[in-house]
Amino acid sequence: MKDESLNPSSFSLHPSALSEGVLSGDNRSLARAISLVEREDPAAERVLADLYGSTGNARIVGITGPPGAGKSTLVSGMAKHYRRQHKRIGIVAVDPTSPFSGGAILGDRIRMAELYTDRGVFIRSMATRGFMGGLAKATNDVVDLLDAAGFDMILVETIGVGQDEVEVIRTVQTNVVVLVPGMGDDIQAIKAGIMEIGDIFVVNKADRQGADKTVTEVTMMMSLVEEHGDWLPPIVKTIASRGEGIVELEDALQKHFEYLRSSGELDRRNRERVRIRLETLLKEKFMDRLVGGALTAEDYEKIVDDVVRKRNNPHDAAENVLRRVTF
Amino acid sequence: MKDESLNPSSFSLHPSALSEGVLSGDNRSLARAISLVEREDPAAERVLADLYGSTGNARIVGITGPPGAGKSTLVSGMAKHYRRQHKRIGIVAVDPTSPFSGGAILGDRIRMAELYTDRGVFIRSMATRGFMGGLAKATNDVVDLLDAAGFDMILVETIGVGQDEVEVIRTVQTNVVVLVPGMGDDIQAIKAGIMEIGDIFVVNKADRQGADKTVTEVTMMMSLVEEHGDWLPPIVKTIASRGEGIVELEDALQKHFEYLRSSGELDRRNRERVRIRLETLLKEKFMDRLVGGALTAEDYEKIVDDVVRKRNNPHDAAENVLRRVTF
Repeated sequence: MKDESLNPSSFSLHPSALSEGVLSGDNRSLARAISLVEREDPAAERVLADLYGSTGNARIVGITGPPGAGKSTLVSGMAKHYRRQHKRIGIVAVDPTSPFSGGAILGDRIRMAELYTDRGVFIRSMATRGFMGGLAKATNDVVDLLDAAGFDMILVETIGVGQDEVEVIRTVQTNVVVLVPGMGDDIQAIKAGIMEIGDIFVVNKADRQGADKTVTEVTMMMSLVEEHGDWLPPIVKTIASRGEGIVELEDALQKHFEYLRSSGELDRRNRERVRIRLETLLKEKFMDRLVGGALTAEDYEKIVDDVVRKRNNPHDAAENVLRRVTF
Repeated sequence: MKDESLNPSSFSLHPSALSEGVLSGDNRSLARAISLVEREDPAAERVLADLYGSTGNARIVGITGPPGAGKSTLVSGMAKHYRRQHKRIGIVAVDPTSPFSGGAILGDRIRMAELYTDRGVFIRSMATRGFMGGLAKATNDVVDLLDAAGFDMILVETIGVGQDEVEVIRTVQTNVVVLVPGMGDDIQAIKAGIMEIGDIFVVNKADRQGADKTVTEVTMMMSLVEEHGDWLPPIVKTIASRGEGIVELEDALQKHFEYLRSSGELDRRNRERVRIRLETLLKEKFMDRLVGGALTAEDYEKIVDDVVRKRNNPHDAAENVLRRVTF
């Protein structure tokens, strides 16, 4: 069934024509390719495969932090800053509470209006759709498409909480963790999870009371994280709504990229990224081929049923299934 | 290799002897079986398979909330309460900041001392160990062992943040979300993630200022959650440190269990639990058999390498690998 649907004749647009459109920098082809990914259209796989060789040039940066930290404002500030250097910027909002995901209040929208009319900026929200193959996989695929389309920097905005988001963060090159002054003790859980994945810390809304206290807290929490390698994450104070601190953040990002390259960490992270993607694909494709292939959906339900009714146990059931698949 | 290590002769204790020990309610056998699970000893699979038929009798309850919400104190209070009814209680702490995980301050330890000396209570922390096969899988396996060992109620304490924890929560029967008054706006992210998975809400430390405001907030947030089915999650106020509200919580848990049974939701959740476990096992066993089986580890690294160096793309690489595995 899958092979048949991969036949180009079943599509209105030939995948290779779409791939060429993306490569040539045509934003409409890009939007169409992203839609294929989101719909999990089998043609998406072909397009992604075609374009994969053209990826690897974009700088991929995660912007992670709780709602209200001002991530979207920071992302807007960064986009405007890099646009002045004529860089093309992709924005992928995974955070469902982000203004980029439609959660905007009027003030935000006005601030972001110029980004939406700038053809050098491409904004996509991943937040409101249900991804069967996983949000992380879809986000990775969209990042690849933006990368192949020649965007210089891709900013991925996430809350950093939950299974999918953590997986998304694991595949960016640099992760910027955004905090704000006045976070209570109750935020320790998020902090604890976030501290280890931060390459750069931003204390946003730095004109608020308690900004220095937050910087001290982050420094203290960082001293508890055992392994930093040779990179000590810098803490940058910003007031994103006024564009303050963006130059310092650019500087920190540049230094981190130099560290990634010179230390071999960039290769290590790229390899890890490939490993995660390959394993995810293998497991998914295996399940696809198994259920509906080697086993009918009814067979599989019967196996589930036997375990539910204690006629079999999960371990033996899995072994039995794998025994049917000879290799 | 795996088959050989499953040979009973390679173990000091025959798996079936261990299984019998667990079934007979011997806590030392139980501790030993849990250790096998934690070490990912191949014998653990045999023990789990043997015991699976004896599971399904325990009431499995998740206690989820941020550090500082008083989850462990609540768990202690519940354990003491149910002990008075002569029920056997298992406590599985997934939260690394829990006193049960060794993060206790003196006051906590004194409060919990009687639990540690009570043979009708079994406490295990999952927090400090590195689980290759996944924390969620290991937690599920430990819950199964406790279930088979005849514990009437198993309380699973988690923060509810992060990939593994979310997976753990998905497999309990009832999830109790614990909040405290005075949580700031910054907690919205955790709240947003947690609201949808709460079957019962506890506002703990209800003698604190703002308790009623928190109840109102939870009620409001709940009205935003689209699907509740026929169950409207109740909000229970507790002061766990004084044992207040535990009876009301017991009542809410009883009502939820009756709902789960009468609505068919219990069967649906059990089935979903089996489905998740079976799929996890299938995918893991598939990767195990693939790398080191159908493919050598070197072969696999070469495939990863080809994708890293853009000589191949992830999709085609995965297809090629699966083509080698004929089924």
